[in-house]
Amino acid sequence: MRTEIATLGEFGLIEHLTEGIEHQNASTVYGVGDDAAVLSYPAPKQVLVTTDILLEGVHFDLTYVPLKHLGYKAAVVNFSDIYAMNGVPRQITVTLGISKRFSVEDMEQLYAGIRLACEAYGVDIVGGDTTSSLTGLTISITCVGEADADKVVYRNGAKENDLICVSGDLGAAYMGLQLLEREKSALRGNTDVQPDFSGKEYLLERQLKPEARKDIIQKLTEAGIKPTAMMDISDGLSSELMHICKQSNAGCRVYEEHIPIDYQTAVMAEEFNMNLTTCALNGGEDYELLFTVPLSLHEQVQDIEGIRLIGHITKPELGCALITRDGQEFELKAQGWNPLK
Amino acid sequence: MRTEIATLGEFGLIEHLTEGIEHQNASTVYGVGDDAAVLSYPAPKQVLVTTDILLEGVHFDLTYVPLKHLGYKAAVVNFSDIYAMNGVPRQITVTLGISKRFSVEDMEQLYAGIRLACEAYGVDIVGGDTTSSLTGLTISITCVGEADADKVVYRNGAKENDLICVSGDLGAAYMGLQLLEREKSALRGNTDVQPDFSGKEYLLERQLKPEARKDIIQKLTEAGIKPTAMMDISDGLSSELMHICKQSNAGCRVYEEHIPIDYQTAVMAEEFNMNLTTCALNGGEDYELLFTVPLSLHEQVQDIEGIRLIGHITKPELGCALITRDGQEFELKAQGWNPLK
Repeated sequence: MRTEIATLGEFGLIEHLTEGIEHQNASTVYGVGDDAAVLSYPAPKQVLVTTDILLEGVHFDLTYVPLKHLGYKAAVVNFSDIYAMNGVPRQITVTLGISKRFSVEDMEQLYAGIRLACEAYGVDIVGGDTTSSLTGLTISITCVGEADADKVVYRNGAKENDLICVSGDLGAAYMGLQLLEREKSALRGNTDVQPDFSGKEYLLERQLKPEARKDIIQKLTEAGIKPTAMMDISDGLSSELMHICKQSNAGCRVYEEHIPIDYQTAVMAEEFNMNLTTCALNGGEDYELLFTVPLSLHEQVQDIEGIRLIGHITKPELGCALITRDGQEFELKAQGWNPLK
Repeated sequence: MRTEIATLGEFGLIEHLTEGIEHQNASTVYGVGDDAAVLSYPAPKQVLVTTDILLEGVHFDLTYVPLKHLGYKAAVVNFSDIYAMNGVPRQITVTLGISKRFSVEDMEQLYAGIRLACEAYGVDIVGGDTTSSLTGLTISITCVGEADADKVVYRNGAKENDLICVSGDLGAAYMGLQLLEREKSALRGNTDVQPDFSGKEYLLERQLKPEARKDIIQKLTEAGIKPTAMMDISDGLSSELMHICKQSNAGCRVYEEHIPIDYQTAVMAEEFNMNLTTCALNGGEDYELLFTVPLSLHEQVQDIEGIRLIGHITKPELGCALITRDGQEFELKAQGWNPLK
């Protein structure tokens, strides 16, 4: 079934897609349907605002990304940015540019994913803008969150001797993308065959349905640990480490042997004849948390499941380097995702 | 001079464009450069959030819209939404999708316009996202503002017998667009000739460099007037009136003879052989304020320069209608800008 979007128009479509949305947060005073959403964040809360745009052909390929997954991911990557400030996401606005290729049913799928993510993370959809586009699909989401003023963690607070930690494992989302791209090439024009992804489900899930590390933020809070610097890994570990070091005026040493990598990622890298460490350092889209804590918290951090210590912060003049398994030192380079290169 | 954007990359470009930005608002705690911006809105302030997207080919045509003007307008239309809540805009995030056609110098122009608007309205640029696009330019701006909790004006508060007011005049931005489109057709392929716009400057300014009615909000506040309902006129008076009436569960009567129209708008409508009232009702992009006040405030509102009373709110069963100069009643229809029709 295909209903043309023009039959509903802008306001009809928004009404249809946001029907039955119930707000989950006390800070949401008024949502969709006016010139602006109205939120309430009394002190000592601070308001966090982040925004991300996804463009068809640049950030996603609808030949293998289901619209529902895309909606889920578009929301989650914004939540991830709020968690990376040590905050809690509360509201999003959803802005869509839609070409004629898409039907009302397509947008229902996309919104189903966005709404699922919002339910999973306790976030309210409070507004947005919907318009036509000449080519493809554009999704721009802005997320508002909150944090106590003294709990916000920036990128610029890493100090010499701080420990560098990451959550989860790295490189799997990138290998998932490689896998999907390979199957797309292999199956070009052949729509009868279904690709066989068995044994590689984790890689696909990491690429198509990433999660934000709400659990890690909760565990850190429960353990009374406030990182000195934090960000989420969207462009790749190397690139993000360099951001933290630049903004903290510091250097770092990261140990290859400590970088957490899943078994499936290693198998795929072997299959693709790719360097595994390079994939983990530069793959991107992991949406894991990268953070630093004072050396004195070594044991407390190590006790938290899902967190790995991968290195330490140094004086700035030592630069950013990877120590390989055989003890060699290589300068880190940000070879990750750069949408403008 | 043309510098390829790839020479700077995403972070280099953002750094370059946001260089030297100084925050003007106490509520801006931390701006560009982290996972999220950090804002502080202690009670009794409420936080207002609005977002707008502009897509090349749908919302603007760079053959006659200078990039600096486009940047200015993209920011101002968001401020207008915050004023329409009876609030004050404080921060924006700027998200750009940029195709290879554009150079660093182009983005400097665009940002110069955004920054000019921010200076004029006292708004801080606190973040955003910058990426490549396959086709054309995408600009998505989210604006955060504030209002005392008891001062926020929604669209849904209009009551029977309330007076309907508009600021400024209507239809000029639409006539400016018609004029630019005509010259574009006339000059196609002929780049030596400069079109003669003398005597039509107001129309062009309304289209290319609209302003948000900060002054009207200030005057209303000074006069102690809180509208019962308010919104800004972006899609056209008819469409916006119908929004207010629908959300307030009311009807309305608007008098053709009271709709404010500038002399230049009238001359151009004549020249284009267009119905002047239709242009004023459905033109769109005026960014004037449409609001309702209790009948008892009749004299106070009438005394404010730049505000015109154009009609009144009725019971819902009377519907929304225009009373023409000769006393006939026509049902209002939203024929204005609908990006999805």
